[in-house]
Amino acid sequence: MSITKSQLKLITSLSQKKYRQKHQLFIAEGTKVVNELLESSLELEILFATENFETTVRKDKITFISETDLKKISSLKTPNKVLGIFKIPEQNKIIDTGLIIALDAINDPGNLGTIIRLCDWFGVKQLVCSNDTVDCYNQKVVQASMGSLTRISITYLDIETYVKNTSLPSFIADMDGENVYKISLPKEGVLIMGNEANGVSSKIKKVVSNTLSIPRFGENKVTESLNVATATAILLSEFNR
Amino acid sequence: MSITKSQLKLITSLSQKKYRQKHQLFIAEGTKVVNELLESSLELEILFATENFETTVRKDKITFISETDLKKISSLKTPNKVLGIFKIPEQNKIIDTGLIIALDAINDPGNLGTIIRLCDWFGVKQLVCSNDTVDCYNQKVVQASMGSLTRISITYLDIETYVKNTSLPSFIADMDGENVYKISLPKEGVLIMGNEANGVSSKIKKVVSNTLSIPRFGENKVTESLNVATATAILLSEFNR
Repeated sequence: MSITKSQLKLITSLSQKKYRQKHQLFIAEGTKVVNELLESSLELEILFATENFETTVRKDKITFISETDLKKISSLKTPNKVLGIFKIPEQNKIIDTGLIIALDAINDPGNLGTIIRLCDWFGVKQLVCSNDTVDCYNQKVVQASMGSLTRISITYLDIETYVKNTSLPSFIADMDGENVYKISLPKEGVLIMGNEANGVSSKIKKVVSNTLSIPRFGENKVTESLNVATATAILLSEFNR
Repeated sequence: MSITKSQLKLITSLSQKKYRQKHQLFIAEGTKVVNELLESSLELEILFATENFETTVRKDKITFISETDLKKISSLKTPNKVLGIFKIPEQNKIIDTGLIIALDAINDPGNLGTIIRLCDWFGVKQLVCSNDTVDCYNQKVVQASMGSLTRISITYLDIETYVKNTSLPSFIADMDGENVYKISLPKEGVLIMGNEANGVSSKIKKVVSNTLSIPRFGENKVTESLNVATATAILLSEFNR
């Protein structure tokens, strides 16, 4: 079989957020990521796969295509057997329990993907993103999160309003904060990580209860700051250790 | 002025490791990274800059070029005023003191760049790389390390031989290791981080004295492993806290 013109048009359009939102669909690629999504509660729209892709997916949900056609629709350098289109799940309501990560204007898809994996590793079940954070159904995020996307509840909202209304203590990371190694951290709370270039925005800083810092151990005073994903890794480790 | 044909050929060739090694030169781009390199002990070969680049570099070391020419020689999406060619410094001999990071076959330039920044942040002065680790003078590494490259001594060598001969205790991160949060870590040692897909190679595992693990807190057993740069962040934090 081959890909129809309208399917090709749909796949191409899903690289843009506005069409993902219009169709409520997103793309995942490669055997590993697609299989994890198939095993999750996500609903499959359709799979495009080469003949050597082994699956128990219902026949009407899969279209077998040639390697050449897969290359045409893939955004990967080396396409790996399968491209799936999945339905975007409904956003869950945030429940004020446990440790919650909130992201303020994270731009880089790789950073968001890494942070989703970190949440999965450290048992963080809820991730809150500001409306100007990169879309978690962006293909690069989907690929970088490696299936962790299916296990974390991700909600886009206005962080300032959320922090004002939550009953949980809130934390941001900032150079002027308290040394994270010297204070005792609660089991529950909202940890807010800020934009790659500008950190947490000032309007959010105003409504936050606690400021943490990761001390610098080197002698040099030049290194500007840790990458947001590595800083998240260190802070999640401290909240959990 | 404009760029000569031979300069253009040199710049293009430096995207390949074999020509960087032949000429003992590498490229850095953008005002921030280039200025940090200029302030370091690195030796400048030549700068190509647009007229609005402010610098005190000797006139015979700088060629002013048009935005159009800068675009031609740049590997960045949005070139930023300057491209510099610098001399690759001589490798330092490793001194068995302090905490040393050793990388076994790290492939991704972004990961190496992030790890170099982490070393800088945590005061790690020596980084040892296996001969099959990505070249630290690869342009993507230079850009990702954001100037930290100038403050860390990086040496390429055979890790197995190095670990066998060092007087320091050696550590690797592995799922089957001791819980890193429950043991006391020394101030000095060699922490070995492994390849993105395969971890630390078996021949190195055989000669290592300690194995650490970062426990997983989530309930899911699927997340394969932490990204090598985030795992390095957490372990460096534990060695220093």
